[in-house]
Amino acid sequence: MADMKVRDVVMIGAGPSALAAGVYTTREDIDTVLYEKGVVGGMAAITDKVDNYPGFPDGVEGMKLASLFQSQAERFGAQIELGEVSEIRDDGDYKTISVDGQEVRAKAVLIATGSDYKKTGVPGEAEYFGRGVHYCATCDGAFYRDRKLVVIGGGNSAVQETIFLTRFASHIDLVVRSTLKASEVLQKELQKYVEIGHVTVHLGTSPVEMVSTDGKISSVRVSDNGVEKSIETDGVFVFVGLLPNTGFLKESSIELDEYGLIKTDSKLATSMKGVFASGDVRSGATLQIASAVGEGASAALSIREYLDGLKHHLGDTESPQAT
Amino acid sequence: MADMKVRDVVMIGAGPSALAAGVYTTREDIDTVLYEKGVVGGMAAITDKVDNYPGFPDGVEGMKLASLFQSQAERFGAQIELGEVSEIRDDGDYKTISVDGQEVRAKAVLIATGSDYKKTGVPGEAEYFGRGVHYCATCDGAFYRDRKLVVIGGGNSAVQETIFLTRFASHIDLVVRSTLKASEVLQKELQKYVEIGHVTVHLGTSPVEMVSTDGKISSVRVSDNGVEKSIETDGVFVFVGLLPNTGFLKESSIELDEYGLIKTDSKLATSMKGVFASGDVRSGATLQIASAVGEGASAALSIREYLDGLKHHLGDTESPQAT
Repeated sequence: MADMKVRDVVMIGAGPSALAAGVYTTREDIDTVLYEKGVVGGMAAITDKVDNYPGFPDGVEGMKLASLFQSQAERFGAQIELGEVSEIRDDGDYKTISVDGQEVRAKAVLIATGSDYKKTGVPGEAEYFGRGVHYCATCDGAFYRDRKLVVIGGGNSAVQETIFLTRFASHIDLVVRSTLKASEVLQKELQKYVEIGHVTVHLGTSPVEMVSTDGKISSVRVSDNGVEKSIETDGVFVFVGLLPNTGFLKESSIELDEYGLIKTDSKLATSMKGVFASGDVRSGATLQIASAVGEGASAALSIREYLDGLKHHLGDTESPQAT
Repeated sequence: MADMKVRDVVMIGAGPSALAAGVYTTREDIDTVLYEKGVVGGMAAITDKVDNYPGFPDGVEGMKLASLFQSQAERFGAQIELGEVSEIRDDGDYKTISVDGQEVRAKAVLIATGSDYKKTGVPGEAEYFGRGVHYCATCDGAFYRDRKLVVIGGGNSAVQETIFLTRFASHIDLVVRSTLKASEVLQKELQKYVEIGHVTVHLGTSPVEMVSTDGKISSVRVSDNGVEKSIETDGVFVFVGLLPNTGFLKESSIELDEYGLIKTDSKLATSMKGVFASGDVRSGATLQIASAVGEGASAALSIREYLDGLKHHLGDTESPQAT
C-alpha cells in the first residue's frame, strides 16, 4: 500500500538547486523529501574542479562541494531518497507523484532535475569527463589559457562557445560532423578567427576516439570524410546539445519551451499551480551552479508563500507550533 | 583630468552579488572595476552568522564569507575601489558614471548596491545589529527556537514575519507605534496567534532602548502611550521598512518600482540598455545571499552577451587575443 500521508514538499532531483531549496525549507520546519534517480549533487558532483562557485576562492572539487550542500540540507532535516519520478498529477490542492511505481502526495513540488549534456559516445569521452573532456565553456574554459583545444559540434552553441574559448585557447580545431548549422551572424564572426589562424574548421568530420597519454587527453582521432586522422590537443569541449530531464512531464500539463525546458514565471512557478522549477531544467537557465543554488533559495521562499496561502485556504486549524 | 579610458564593466556596489558577478567577468578577462561606498561584502559582511548560504554546512561568519567572496573576485583580477556613485548617464554605446565627482566610462554597468533595512534609531540597536537585533526573519529566525522575541513594526512585513516567527519563538511581543497598517487578511491571521496567547500586540507603543545584560539583549524598553515599561526578550526583529540604495538613479531613465527597487527583465537588464541589476536592489529580490550571488553570476553572463554584441556592433577590429 502506498503511504497516503501528504508531504509538505516533494523535490524532484537532489542537485545543487534542490539541495539549496532543501536547506531553506527544512530550516523552517517544512517537511521535505528529495527524490534523486542518479547522483546526489547532480552535475556538480561529477565535475572535477569548480572554480567559480562564490565562497571558495581557490576552487573546490565538485564532489566535495556536492557533499557540503548535502550535509547542510540534511543538517536541517531534509530527507534524500533514491527513486525515479515518472509522473506528476494535479489532484487539486495536492499533487500526486509516482516514484518507482509508488504514489506520493505533496502540497507543493519543486522540479530540479537538471539537464544532461548530450555525449558523442566515442571511447575515452566518459573516462575523461571533467578531466580533459568538457561541456561548459563558462565553467572550464579558463583552465585552458594558452593551450590547444578541440571543439566538437556545428550548431549555434558550438560556434558561440568556440568564439568564446578563443579568449583562452592558443588554437582551436572545430570538428563538425556535416556542415555548420549555426546562424549566419555567428558563422561570419567565426570566420574572423579562421582568417587569422586562431580557429581551424573541419567539416564532414566525426570524432572516433578521445586519446590519452599518461592519463591526460592528448589528441582526438577523427574520421575526415572517411579518412582517419589525429588532432593533437590539450582538451576537448563537446557542444552537441542539451537533454533536459523532463521526459516524465510529457503527459502533464506543465508547459515546456521548444528545447524541453520548463517555463517559469518571476516567482519560479510553473504552469501547474503549486509546482515550481529551478536550476538547469528551467527555461533560461545559465547552467551555472551559483545560479542554480540562488534559484533554489528563491524557489523555497515562493514555496513557503504558497504553502502559507494554502494553509489559510484549507482552513487549517492545527496549532501554529505544529506547522 | 578624468581618465577617459572606457572600462568594460563598472559594477556599483561590492556586496555578494557584485563580487559573484566579478568572479565571472574577470575569469573571462573582462576588465572590471567595482565601486563600493561602504563595506566590501555589503550586508553579508556585517551579519554575525550565515546559516543558509549553501556550501557551509555548519554556518559561516558573515565577515568570513564576505572576505572569501572578495578574495575569489580579486584572484581573477577584479579591481575594488572605494567611491560613491552619484549618477549614471547613457551616452549611447558608453555609460558615464560619476564617482566622487570624477567621470568614469564603461561599456556595461551592473548596479548591485543592495538595500538597507530602516532602523528605529534607539540606543542599543546599532550595537547589537546581527547579535540580538535582526532585520531578516528568514535569515535569523531559526536561531530563536523556543525563545522569546520582540518584533517592531505594524505594516504588512512586520505582521507577516511575526506570523512566520511563531514557528520558532515561544512567544512574541509585537510593538506597534500607532495602529496596525497590515492588510485585513494578515491581521485576521495574526489574531489567531493572539487568541492562543502566542503573540501579544502592543498598540501605540514605541521602542525607547534595546537593553542588554552580560553582552546579550535582555529586554526592550518601550513607551506605551507615554508610559515607559520593559518587555523581556531574547532577541528583537525590526520590520519598519526597506531603503533601496537607488537614490543616485532618481535623475536617470532607469525604471524603479513603487518601493524604489530597480525593475529588470528575465536577463536582469534594466530599462537602460547596457545597464543590469542584481541582488537586493532588484525589484522582486528575496534579500538572501544565495539569491544575490546566483543573480550576480547570471547577470555576468548577460553582460558578456551584451559586450559581445556591442563588439560586433562597434565593428571592433582588435585582435581576438586582446579581448
